[in-house]
Amino acid sequence: MKFIATPVKGMNDFLPADMRLREYTLSMIKEIYASYGFAQIETPAMEHIENLTSNQGGENEKLIFKVMKRGADLARALEKENGELADNGLRYDLTVPLSRYYANNSNNLPSPFKALQIGNVWRADKPQKGRFRQFTQCDIDILGDDSILAEIELIGATSTALYKILSQVNIKDFTVHINDRRILKAMTLYAGFPEDSQDLVYIILDKLDKIGVEGVKEALLKEGFDETSVNKYVEIFDRYSQGVNAKEFCNFLNQDYINDKIVEDVDTIISCVRTMTDKGVKLVFDPTLVRGMSYYTGTIFEITLDNYNFSVAGGGRYDEMIGKFSNQKVPACGFSIGFERIITILKDFEAEKFIDNKNKKAFLIDKKVCVQTMTEVFEKAAALRKEGWTVTVQPLKKNAKFQVEKLEADGYGDIEKVFEK
Amino acid sequence: MKFIATPVKGMNDFLPADMRLREYTLSMIKEIYASYGFAQIETPAMEHIENLTSNQGGENEKLIFKVMKRGADLARALEKENGELADNGLRYDLTVPLSRYYANNSNNLPSPFKALQIGNVWRADKPQKGRFRQFTQCDIDILGDDSILAEIELIGATSTALYKILSQVNIKDFTVHINDRRILKAMTLYAGFPEDSQDLVYIILDKLDKIGVEGVKEALLKEGFDETSVNKYVEIFDRYSQGVNAKEFCNFLNQDYINDKIVEDVDTIISCVRTMTDKGVKLVFDPTLVRGMSYYTGTIFEITLDNYNFSVAGGGRYDEMIGKFSNQKVPACGFSIGFERIITILKDFEAEKFIDNKNKKAFLIDKKVCVQTMTEVFEKAAALRKEGWTVTVQPLKKNAKFQVEKLEADGYGDIEKVFEK
Repeated sequence: MKFIATPVKGMNDFLPADMRLREYTLSMIKEIYASYGFAQIETPAMEHIENLTSNQGGENEKLIFKVMKRGADLARALEKENGELADNGLRYDLTVPLSRYYANNSNNLPSPFKALQIGNVWRADKPQKGRFRQFTQCDIDILGDDSILAEIELIGATSTALYKILSQVNIKDFTVHINDRRILKAMTLYAGFPEDSQDLVYIILDKLDKIGVEGVKEALLKEGFDETSVNKYVEIFDRYSQGVNAKEFCNFLNQDYINDKIVEDVDTIISCVRTMTDKGVKLVFDPTLVRGMSYYTGTIFEITLDNYNFSVAGGGRYDEMIGKFSNQKVPACGFSIGFERIITILKDFEAEKFIDNKNKKAFLIDKKVCVQTMTEVFEKAAALRKEGWTVTVQPLKKNAKFQVEKLEADGYGDIEKVFEK
Repeated sequence: MKFIATPVKGMNDFLPADMRLREYTLSMIKEIYASYGFAQIETPAMEHIENLTSNQGGENEKLIFKVMKRGADLARALEKENGELADNGLRYDLTVPLSRYYANNSNNLPSPFKALQIGNVWRADKPQKGRFRQFTQCDIDILGDDSILAEIELIGATSTALYKILSQVNIKDFTVHINDRRILKAMTLYAGFPEDSQDLVYIILDKLDKIGVEGVKEALLKEGFDETSVNKYVEIFDRYSQGVNAKEFCNFLNQDYINDKIVEDVDTIISCVRTMTDKGVKLVFDPTLVRGMSYYTGTIFEITLDNYNFSVAGGGRYDEMIGKFSNQKVPACGFSIGFERIITILKDFEAEKFIDNKNKKAFLIDKKVCVQTMTEVFEKAAALRKEGWTVTVQPLKKNAKFQVEKLEADGYGDIEKVFEK
């Protein structure tokens, strides 16, 4: 028998300390989100291959782990030239399954529906540091609410959860960046860029924090955009830095480009979320925030840690997507925590060491102990467990010193060897 | 676009009430097992196809969902006659992954290692009532302990967990059946059955509760077994009913067939577990208990509910299996809760209705409310959440009556409509 001890490439075995940290972090996330009225749901790991390849998943559709048809179906597919061998695939995100779920169950769900999904997703990506082929996603979404109350609840809940989790390791400074796809669009129209080149302009703008305003200017010119437009565009970002009031920033845009309400809404979101979050949480209008997914239709947002150069959560409004699945227009807005990144940060601070602070006792039983003595030990163990202790009963090994050291390292502060009297 | 709203065949979308029940039940299981010192671990959903088809999985190996190779690997496999198209498969149980996990990580694990695994498994089985193609398994295992302390801890923990969960719906009477594969074997040798026909005898004995002693006798004779042996065998089960002391029951077996220690151990396990469990939990030596999996080598056990004709947990000792994966002998013993069955029972009693007893408040905000008023609502919401309330803030809908009814049904006892003053 050929047997392989390592996990499948790019996937992880979680050791007890890893799991303690993951479970503890998830319990905090669940608790905060529940306090905001988000209801946990779950969809199967597998989805119909048709749904996964419906052009909603962007680049992720190239990374699907496909599940083979079975029996006669497979035989038929193999006989055909270019037959489809897969009937299912593993989900690569939680958004496509949510859309299917809502189409399938909306009659039994409240409106608006506040959903929390925590689950694994799979991508046949090139494995690299911090990027896995199976990883946990943690999404909240509000379906059926077209008002900014949805944005406020999503951002308030996620900021509160992240603050609670990260302040344990003394990370208390982070920034919530808020923008709107329609403001991004208005700025490109104001500058005079052609409407069909917006995505390209966004991709370049997205690099601003790495290449600076001058870099963005160069990159836009290199793409052949009109110099007047480019100058008009970069001037916007020269004028104000992030953190400015959205209404003040956008005063150069007239009604042809954007509805004032959209701009005011950004400021309202910020002032309402501020009432719910800790002082360390900075909330800023960030006109340079882009967010990758093309399905966003309105507000977009992202949380970054001030001392780390990456985001730990991202989301936005996507009012068109659910409708594509359910054939009825359903406004939607979501926020996704980068769970694996949070865990990586917590591990950097060895957070797994200080979350397991129960009283722990081990009884080590010598071989010669009689049934009566053994019974007494188990009685004591049961009583301690009822009082909230963690208790383990194990055979006393020949190398007792090593056994005791291992148990102590595992947090057992009370170790009792039991011999026959 | 062809879009399918239903989940993949045999798999489930879990609604919020389902999830509340599942999460609540899992939290109780985790809490009890943690108090016994079991450490949660996790393995990936996918395993190497070689490991899944290594003859450890019995009939389940026919039910594997195979994951297709990708890119050049797939192209090469397709070119070959009968090429292997899959490199991975979805796990069909948690025991094969545990064996691989232990082989991969034993250097970083304590010994004995008490593991708790909760996770989904996938089987391409014929879907039917109560049998799904994706379902949750919940296993505890103790690796590296060849003493009966392992059995006692496993049975004590599982009985305690099930009692705690089921007594919520007033199910307090259940029976833990305990037997040993070596006692089963000794009985067949005593009766004079050929050694290589044991599995067949067990399959027939396993039907005892359905077909009775006479039925077992008929079935054995029909298979062509010697009449003297059959009579000698069924006489055993005529003589005693379940619940007898193992030592007393086995007094007809002499040392040629079995070591006295094995029989005494069954009684010791029972008397030690008794100290840890509630009075409603009956612990019995059951010489008719068989358990299906061929990998069991010693003690076997099962928990049945007195008023339901099925088992809710099963397990046993399997000292040979881990060694096949890790190339070193590792004694092992495990117990698996039938999680989906427990959930089915709890749902029959509508348990989902009484587990969500938080204070819940909804603010329904009228469209015309100004930013200042909105800010005040979110401040109040944040304060209530800190006090442990579940609070949702939503737009007041045109059909407010229907909205309020839905929220009340969802447990919101305090609903406040907010208009501009």
